[in-house]
Amino acid sequence: MIKTKNGDATGSGLRGDTMRIKRSKKLTDLKWLNMFNIVYADKAGRQRTWQVATREKTPKCVSGDFSGPDAVVIIPFHTHRKEVVITKEYRVPLADFEYGFPAGLVDADETAEAAVRRELLEETGLTVTRFIKSSPPIYSSAGMTDESVALVYVECEGDPSSAGNQGTEQIEVIFVSADKAAVLCADASLKFDAKAWPVLARYAEHGDL
Amino acid sequence: MIKTKNGDATGSGLRGDTMRIKRSKKLTDLKWLNMFNIVYADKAGRQRTWQVATREKTPKCVSGDFSGPDAVVIIPFHTHRKEVVITKEYRVPLADFEYGFPAGLVDADETAEAAVRRELLEETGLTVTRFIKSSPPIYSSAGMTDESVALVYVECEGDPSSAGNQGTEQIEVIFVSADKAAVLCADASLKFDAKAWPVLARYAEHGDL
Repeated sequence: MIKTKNGDATGSGLRGDTMRIKRSKKLTDLKWLNMFNIVYADKAGRQRTWQVATREKTPKCVSGDFSGPDAVVIIPFHTHRKEVVITKEYRVPLADFEYGFPAGLVDADETAEAAVRRELLEETGLTVTRFIKSSPPIYSSAGMTDESVALVYVECEGDPSSAGNQGTEQIEVIFVSADKAAVLCADASLKFDAKAWPVLARYAEHGDL
Repeated sequence: MIKTKNGDATGSGLRGDTMRIKRSKKLTDLKWLNMFNIVYADKAGRQRTWQVATREKTPKCVSGDFSGPDAVVIIPFHTHRKEVVITKEYRVPLADFEYGFPAGLVDADETAEAAVRRELLEETGLTVTRFIKSSPPIYSSAGMTDESVALVYVECEGDPSSAGNQGTEQIEVIFVSADKAAVLCADASLKFDAKAWPVLARYAEHGDL
């Protein structure tokens, strides 16, 4: 039912049933994140616009490249401590610390699996010992961005360390039992990542991931 | 441990331990979503910048207003069908349909609860019969945006309808058993919302929400 067709003169003709992306215009010229205006035709054929924030040179809706996840979100179970590992990381857009899982962008020359091993070590000092399961690429907030992440569930070992924190990263490692997860999930004074909350809520109620 | 202090001359002095937001500059002039450059001091006191995409007139890290969720993500259990309700909605940034839960922005004059009732009806034609539980405001992707959502778990009744779809919305309602949720979550050809995937994965494995 979903048809895809590339290659019209303005960049693409990707279709979703009756919607059609026509072209995009870059509105900012920044290093890490940019805003684009997307011109598309709605189901009645009327020309409309939509704004997209993206880390891509060309927004995915124009390039058609939805391969890979942009980032990995690592859900680590520490086999010796028998607890889940979460992080408390300063986030400029929140002007505060956010509770979530270790996470990071997949480098251009890197597999998602390699990014998981690297980011877990950098952010927590812990070592992946087993890959358990992974989500496909899933979308953070598709109304505003084409960003995708994969949730990657792993087992890990080792002692936590912030020695690998990169640049301005300021990351605290926290070990969480199911009981502690219940307390954290219920605390409205904390700022939680939206992917981490439902995973920890399940862990609190079922004891699994 | 997290200290907050408002009111320096450049707009705010929100602190996260040793980080400090100094000021922001609006880089775009769009209706729904804008890009801001944030100037902040890192833990060593060095001046650095970060880009934030936001729907706010002033980014939350500058205004300090982290009240309310910006949007509600509704997790509806249909009591007669005994199935979960998901949506398949066209998303311009994905040039495709996205599988997720009914969701929408909370209007300025509206409670989150009212937004849940309104959005569920508009997007699916279904009526909320009971509120079960809710997450606090949680953050979609705090590296790039200050957007927050609340996951609101409800029971609902009625027959699905797209009569209430607003503007360019193009939304299909899908009833999902635990078995069907397992199939959908494993299908890498589908584009899933990042909050919906872990909730449906739990439903697939435990039969609850």
